[in-house]
Amino acid sequence: MASLSKSLYAIVAGVGPGTGGAVAKRFAKAYPVILLARQEASYKATVDEITQAGGRAIGVPTDVSDAAAVKHALETATASKELQLDANAKLVAAVYNASVFVMKPFLELEKEDLDKSLQVNAYGFFNFAQATLPHLLKAVESDTPHPPTLIVTGATAAIRGSAKFAGFAAGKFAKRAITQSLAREFGPQGIHVAHVIIDGGIKSPRYDNGIKDGMLSPDAIADSYWYLHTQPRSCFTQELDVRPYVEKF
Amino acid sequence: MASLSKSLYAIVAGVGPGTGGAVAKRFAKAYPVILLARQEASYKATVDEITQAGGRAIGVPTDVSDAAAVKHALETATASKELQLDANAKLVAAVYNASVFVMKPFLELEKEDLDKSLQVNAYGFFNFAQATLPHLLKAVESDTPHPPTLIVTGATAAIRGSAKFAGFAAGKFAKRAITQSLAREFGPQGIHVAHVIIDGGIKSPRYDNGIKDGMLSPDAIADSYWYLHTQPRSCFTQELDVRPYVEKF
Amino acid sequence: MASLSKSLYAIVAGVGPGTGGAVAKRFAKAYPVILLARQEASYKATVDEITQAGGRAIGVPTDVSDAAAVKHALETATASKELQLDANAKLVAAVYNASVFVMKPFLELEKEDLDKSLQVNAYGFFNFAQATLPHLLKAVESDTPHPPTLIVTGATAAIRGSAKFAGFAAGKFAKRAITQSLAREFGPQGIHVAHVIIDGGIKSPRYDNGIKDGMLSPDAIADSYWYLHTQPRSCFTQELDVRPYVEKF
Amino acid sequence: MASLSKSLYAIVAGVGPGTGGAVAKRFAKAYPVILLARQEASYKATVDEITQAGGRAIGVPTDVSDAAAVKHALETATASKELQLDANAKLVAAVYNASVFVMKPFLELEKEDLDKSLQVNAYGFFNFAQATLPHLLKAVESDTPHPPTLIVTGATAAIRGSAKFAGFAAGKFAKRAITQSLAREFGPQGIHVAHVIIDGGIKSPRYDNGIKDGMLSPDAIADSYWYLHTQPRSCFTQELDVRPYVEKF
Repeated sequence: MASLSKSLYAIVAGVGPGTGGAVAKRFAKAYPVILLARQEASYKATVDEITQAGGRAIGVPTDVSDAAAVKHALETATASKELQLDANAKLVAAVYNASVFVMKPFLELEKEDLDKSLQVNAYGFFNFAQATLPHLLKAVESDTPHPPTLIVTGATAAIRGSAKFAGFAAGKFAKRAITQSLAREFGPQGIHVAHVIIDGGIKSPRYDNGIKDGMLSPDAIADSYWYLHTQPRSCFTQELDVRPYVEKF
Repeated sequence: MASLSKSLYAIVAGVGPGTGGAVAKRFAKAYPVILLARQEASYKATVDEITQAGGRAIGVPTDVSDAAAVKHALETATASKELQLDANAKLVAAVYNASVFVMKPFLELEKEDLDKSLQVNAYGFFNFAQATLPHLLKAVESDTPHPPTLIVTGATAAIRGSAKFAGFAAGKFAKRAITQSLAREFGPQGIHVAHVIIDGGIKSPRYDNGIKDGMLSPDAIADSYWYLHTQPRSCFTQELDVRPYVEKF
Repeated sequence: MASLSKSLYAIVAGVGPGTGGAVAKRFAKAYPVILLARQEASYKATVDEITQAGGRAIGVPTDVSDAAAVKHALETATASKELQLDANAKLVAAVYNASVFVMKPFLELEKEDLDKSLQVNAYGFFNFAQATLPHLLKAVESDTPHPPTLIVTGATAAIRGSAKFAGFAAGKFAKRAITQSLAREFGPQGIHVAHVIIDGGIKSPRYDNGIKDGMLSPDAIADSYWYLHTQPRSCFTQELDVRPYVEKF
Repeated sequence: MASLSKSLYAIVAGVGPGTGGAVAKRFAKAYPVILLARQEASYKATVDEITQAGGRAIGVPTDVSDAAAVKHALETATASKELQLDANAKLVAAVYNASVFVMKPFLELEKEDLDKSLQVNAYGFFNFAQATLPHLLKAVESDTPHPPTLIVTGATAAIRGSAKFAGFAAGKFAKRAITQSLAREFGPQGIHVAHVIIDGGIKSPRYDNGIKDGMLSPDAIADSYWYLHTQPRSCFTQELDVRPYVEKF
């Protein structure tokens, strides 16, 4: 990675041991990467792994539901020595992976549950998009290898409101609504806005259904995000579904 | 309307001169009706019209984004002398029609815009559903002429996020998500939960495209809500679209 | 039914003891009705029932996959003494309910299976629509009580291709495609084109899941078709789903 | 391409100068490829191009609506000296790209128009899938680098029936129905079945809207097919949309 860019960088919000971390590592093969998570513990191992592999990364503890915090994190990170960016470096990839899980019978659902879902999925993504889109627009004018990209992690609950999932689906539907709206507003301006529907369980050390390849591999998901990023603007995908081969759908 | 029920009643939230008022008048032909709107001015004419036609109605100024206010309005109204309800009267129809319009380029959209949309569409409907569902469940046990019904007014923006509609669509998608979730949780318990996609402009004194029948008539929309309410539980519709014959879609 | 129309009539293709028969009986309360089915045995009891109830009906044995046969049936029936129609009587409602069931593992599916599905759903509906639309267009110019209507019976398989349903879904998807295309072409000309998704089992003497109201009642489905027919052109529904309250979806 | 496989091969049906040819060339970088088209003229240039680039390819003039012809083409090609395949070589990628365009006001649409659309999209794909799936199933047992894949080219008309597109959409909807059904039946058996929605014009020497990157590039589409093929079975995409950045949707 000696040739890692000084003029381009990426950001991933919602980094943990699963999808977010895998996406950060995948994009770190090409770009210095900013990692956001509420807690340092969530991204620290990934930052270390990227650095040890010869990449450049910095984590910033950030509550995405706080607009000022998101903007501040972006400014702080791009100015940091860890990323070694040029003064006019461009943001070419922004991935929003922050999430929260809520599942309750509707009459037991509390306002706080709905808050959690909407704060992360609607307000958090709103903040992240407002902070990153002006930078992505600047990259359009440059001759970047791939079109500036905004990728959003969705779920089955983004297209289907199941019993006991009112709070969870409200947030996921809202996030998909915003993503579609951005695709239609910023696509013609040259920004690739894509929504990925994760349909199935994601494999992790503590969660494995025991079926070989029977759960989504975070690395494979990350590859799909990278593929989306590499699509030329003559051929943009707006929505991609991914699921393990054994998943019922 | 001499035979207007004393044991059954309906509630409509989001009453104004358009759809909400027309729905209230339609349901008032069969049931005493509670009308909610933020301002008394929004529902007063409709309440008068219902009363003069021999129906029974009461309006309660209510901010649906305030959970306690919604519950209080329901209690106050059912106890009011205007509705003349029996002590154990049952709620058989609840219509959520509250809405707000937001349209802005995304980078000009402010948190307050997103708030407005989510407060009315997500939190407001959440409050309304939590306040009414326990009452609708009680009606299931009774032998009501039509299954207890919860109808929600949606829009094209509930299934499509267009450019400049990020805030608006976020709320409409979220409301549809909750509605679907409720349909799947409460349908098998006997409650009819339906979402109506209003696709096109609604005719009003100050808004008319000049094409004969070229805009949605509030009375025709109200008829569709009443039809949904009369469906037997062997044949529930979950989602209905309505548009004028000249509408492109 | 003394006042049954002499100037308006309806046609239902695919009449048997279930949905088709119930729809024919429902529309026969307002209009003389033409019933089509491949075999006389399929519609005979319904014709008799309509006649005994004071309505007017005629059945014509017709293979809908034969374009000439469909046109011939329409001509023969309108000229028949049974319907007592005026010379310039208008067709105001055409319902296409013909269907066929196919379910097989894909590698056991034969060309004949695919044929059956496409003949009834694609070619048959194509023939029916081509034969009836010119007549429905003529009715637009008249002052009919309800807009001329073309209603098509669909199924869950019209929006979802499940395992072992390749042949069945191919036909249902194709029929929905044609219906949508007609709605967009003929809607602005004043014809109401609607597609109904029947999602669940239909109750019949030989098919009952034993759950009270747990299967679709043909009469309730027929009521939904009638409701669609009565919508004014300021408020057309293009797609309606119906299912029993206990149905998973 | 010295290391081009002798044990694996691919097949592409519907090869012309656009998508089909580009897909064949893309897959030919890894596998010997069989090209099908009705006329030799459609695939000849692509076969030559592949061969000159060091790949191996053979074209077989085939009417996909003829089941026996499709099976025969597959047998002939795999036994041909051009591909240099081992006796037990496995089919690992099958792409169905055959299409035909129909656009007419509905009342001018003839049975032959509907035939054309259904023959290519429904019957043709049915034949192709029945001929290739048994071979793809055999490849599952082998340790192929990528899961055996069946990719189908769809269009906007596969999810939307527009005015004047009844015939075209009927075929595209039917093809999508079959694809979904196959994904649900053969996915759990390890075969990746994917449907691609081409939403926008495809650039060609005789068709260019003059906007830079304003039309779909066949090579970019081909890359997306190759990406789908390389997805591991823990992360299958079932449906992918692609469109130029300027496309309205």
